[in-house]
Amino acid sequence: MTMILSDDRRAAPRGDTAIAEEDGNPMARPRTPLLDRQRIVHTALRLVDEAGDLTIPALAGALKVSPSALYHHVTGRAEIVALMRAELVRVIGERSLWDRPWDEALRGWARAYREAFAEHPGIIRLLATAPLAEPFMHELYERAVATLEAAGFARADVMGVITALESFILGSALDLVAPAVMVDAVDREATPRLAEALAAVPAGRHRADQAFEVGLAALIAGYRTLLPAGRAAGAATGPTAGVAGPDPISDQA
Amino acid sequence: MTMILSDDRRAAPRGDTAIAEEDGNPMARPRTPLLDRQRIVHTALRLVDEAGDLTIPALAGALKVSPSALYHHVTGRAEIVALMRAELVRVIGERSLWDRPWDEALRGWARAYREAFAEHPGIIRLLATAPLAEPFMHELYERAVATLEAAGFARADVMGVITALESFILGSALDLVAPAVMVDAVDREATPRLAEALAAVPAGRHRADQAFEVGLAALIAGYRTLLPAGRAAGAATGPTAGVAGPDPISDQA
Repeated sequence: MTMILSDDRRAAPRGDTAIAEEDGNPMARPRTPLLDRQRIVHTALRLVDEAGDLTIPALAGALKVSPSALYHHVTGRAEIVALMRAELVRVIGERSLWDRPWDEALRGWARAYREAFAEHPGIIRLLATAPLAEPFMHELYERAVATLEAAGFARADVMGVITALESFILGSALDLVAPAVMVDAVDREATPRLAEALAAVPAGRHRADQAFEVGLAALIAGYRTLLPAGRAAGAATGPTAGVAGPDPISDQA
Repeated sequence: MTMILSDDRRAAPRGDTAIAEEDGNPMARPRTPLLDRQRIVHTALRLVDEAGDLTIPALAGALKVSPSALYHHVTGRAEIVALMRAELVRVIGERSLWDRPWDEALRGWARAYREAFAEHPGIIRLLATAPLAEPFMHELYERAVATLEAAGFARADVMGVITALESFILGSALDLVAPAVMVDAVDREATPRLAEALAAVPAGRHRADQAFEVGLAALIAGYRTLLPAGRAAGAATGPTAGVAGPDPISDQA
């Protein structure tokens, strides 16, 4: 499976100004391009994982190219952020995710989304606060909106329902990369109730998994109360059958 | 109100090795200490806000002291993280927060917690993934556990209920610092349902506020389904009246 933005849909680079370190001449033109969008996005993800942020100079440095070489492949930082988002979304979702009753669809999306972000916790803040201007993201949201509206959610609630679930997922992805024993060194004398509550918590990453499932079940149960009476069971048919537009994620590999 | 850790409860520093830049002599001993824990924690917060992470060399550099000077005031990075957490918790909570029915208490805590973290979005990942070993945090959790158990929540659910709410709060704090128009440049032809759902979203920061309140109400409604039949209304009496230990937050100012 290839994500929609992973292949370079542009014309060939206008000129390769990548700095070839191999022969010691910074202006030498290498036989094969040192840069492609795939390498840019993977290096950007690694940088963000390490530093929690992304700057063009830092990315150019990590790629051992000049900043101007980067601009032959991407239009700027916003496009690199979009590419990173696409890389994560590629892991999360196929169209089929939304061809299910709303509650199953939200659960499946939440679990996949959390796993993908837990692989790259450094990017969470960046993506959570960068505007979603990419058409492939809009197409994913179009499916989510269609699924929720077909289930009976009021139009005024739909974006809130999606956004609140995303907030829960992002926070849960951070919790998944937290230590297995998160509340540590508890004094049983001073805080006995906490000590006993912690003794009931599963070990290892099951701690975060259990909390995530408790919250996910609660959110979905709470969302269900927003539905008109009689619709709370969810639609059984595929609700995105009529959604226009191409697959945001297609199998091209 | 003074947070429990904001005053320096240690003896006077063993010796002040702060580097006084003012007179150009890096070894000069200034008349007044250049460092105190308050200044350390505020500088650390600023650094984390900017860089998303904290290192002792970077903090020493920002304070214009040697790393060894820092160790006269704090035992290390873990204590600085604890001080930052205390500074945020100071904003969030007083004991009275928990002397309420569980649902009111969770709502009040969630709203205050989100506001406090939204002031320092760079710290969210750091605090979400650093173990909670500080007694003052354990005392806050003790009150939360007591409130939830008094309301009827099963011991096996309590930490999951707290952790899932925290995950939602941290994700929502990131959303609060996101752009007011988060889903941007939507093509009405390609994604008409999304365009209409977005048209129903309130403007400005009300977007994030609405999503937070939708999710908070849903989580609490979902949590309510975990209670035994007949307990779902919540306890009306102050459930933390019997909690042992001193106030984690006391008025000393």
